[in-house]
Amino acid sequence: MAQQDRAIRTRQLILQAAGVIFAERGYEGATIKDVYDSVGVTKGAFYFHFASKKELAEAVLGAQVGDAGFPLVPRALKLQELVDAGMVFAHTLTHDPILQASIRLSMDPSTPDVDRRRPFQAWIDQNRRALDDALERGEMHPHVDVAEIAHLLVGAFSGVQLLSQAMTDRKDLEERISILLTNLLPAFAVPGILAKVDMSPGRGARVLAEMQQLLSPSCC
Amino acid sequence: MAQQDRAIRTRQLILQAAGVIFAERGYEGATIKDVYDSVGVTKGAFYFHFASKKELAEAVLGAQVGDAGFPLVPRALKLQELVDAGMVFAHTLTHDPILQASIRLSMDPSTPDVDRRRPFQAWIDQNRRALDDALERGEMHPHVDVAEIAHLLVGAFSGVQLLSQAMTDRKDLEERISILLTNLLPAFAVPGILAKVDMSPGRGARVLAEMQQLLSPSCC
Repeated sequence: MAQQDRAIRTRQLILQAAGVIFAERGYEGATIKDVYDSVGVTKGAFYFHFASKKELAEAVLGAQVGDAGFPLVPRALKLQELVDAGMVFAHTLTHDPILQASIRLSMDPSTPDVDRRRPFQAWIDQNRRALDDALERGEMHPHVDVAEIAHLLVGAFSGVQLLSQAMTDRKDLEERISILLTNLLPAFAVPGILAKVDMSPGRGARVLAEMQQLLSPSCC
Repeated sequence: MAQQDRAIRTRQLILQAAGVIFAERGYEGATIKDVYDSVGVTKGAFYFHFASKKELAEAVLGAQVGDAGFPLVPRALKLQELVDAGMVFAHTLTHDPILQASIRLSMDPSTPDVDRRRPFQAWIDQNRRALDDALERGEMHPHVDVAEIAHLLVGAFSGVQLLSQAMTDRKDLEERISILLTNLLPAFAVPGILAKVDMSPGRGARVLAEMQQLLSPSCC
């Protein structure tokens, strides 16, 4: 493995270990030593990648938007892309420790040195772009307040995931997000579009499988 | 003040102090000593009311359903009662430290000795009863899955409040809950009912004022 590849891999391993430890203990309860001990790297190797616990937490928080299954497969309907982003995120959240830790950090008000608004705002902005496009293409009722819906989707998603985590350790997460979308989309999508958007619980896994095939060297 | 009244008042003061301290420091970060020192009562007086930090946290959690503005004023429409419960809760959350702490405790996965599912389940059950009644009275589409909606409302509410807290320190909470309800009710309420349900941001304060008047000795 080339030196650069090894560095990228080590950084990813540190992020994963930080994910597990932040998700278990929260920001206050986690120490940098816990993280580098659990990866099996030296203190020096750790500080080559991250200058502080704050920087590490911000990298974990940043994983929430950007790496979470994006770029998505472009669709004829912009609202399908919006749904896909949510369903892929929900599916990934059921097993990815970095995402789980990112969620935990953004919900924890005792992380004063970390700006936990950042991932929320990034999701709101991403929804806003998709909804603006959907509105322009006639997929939405013309009177819809796009900024309100972009914000509402992030809020409602966060709470449905919180409740699923508290009640079933996220076992019903994909089903609950599917129920949320099925009940909320009619508030802004035109009826003709609704029947064409796949919001079923298995959607996240199907989109990810499709992406892996598109990205595989033997494809297309 | 009679001895019993004093005991009730002390218990309430302890709960309020615990609210502030849990809301600031979380379950792990709070100590019993912090609580009785801040109320100005002795350790013995504290233990007369609560046997442990766990019992104190469970009393704070329990405040979320039961004391939060209930019993509500009965309405001709059951869906108005459902909305009123949510709007009164949102309004009270903007300034009540016990409720704020209760929310914080139910969101915190690092409280292993406390059953944080209890307030969520109590809210789901309460919504379920209101929705069953509303269905029976013809206020809802007959095909609606009442259990799903009862659960969805709790999840979505929790997340909208979480986002409002993270982004604006709950300044826009009542407005965001109003937006949530306005967009979600059409999924289950029949159109003829929708125009008659008041879901505007000031609803919580108005209902509370009405209740105070009904409960005042000079009333009616």
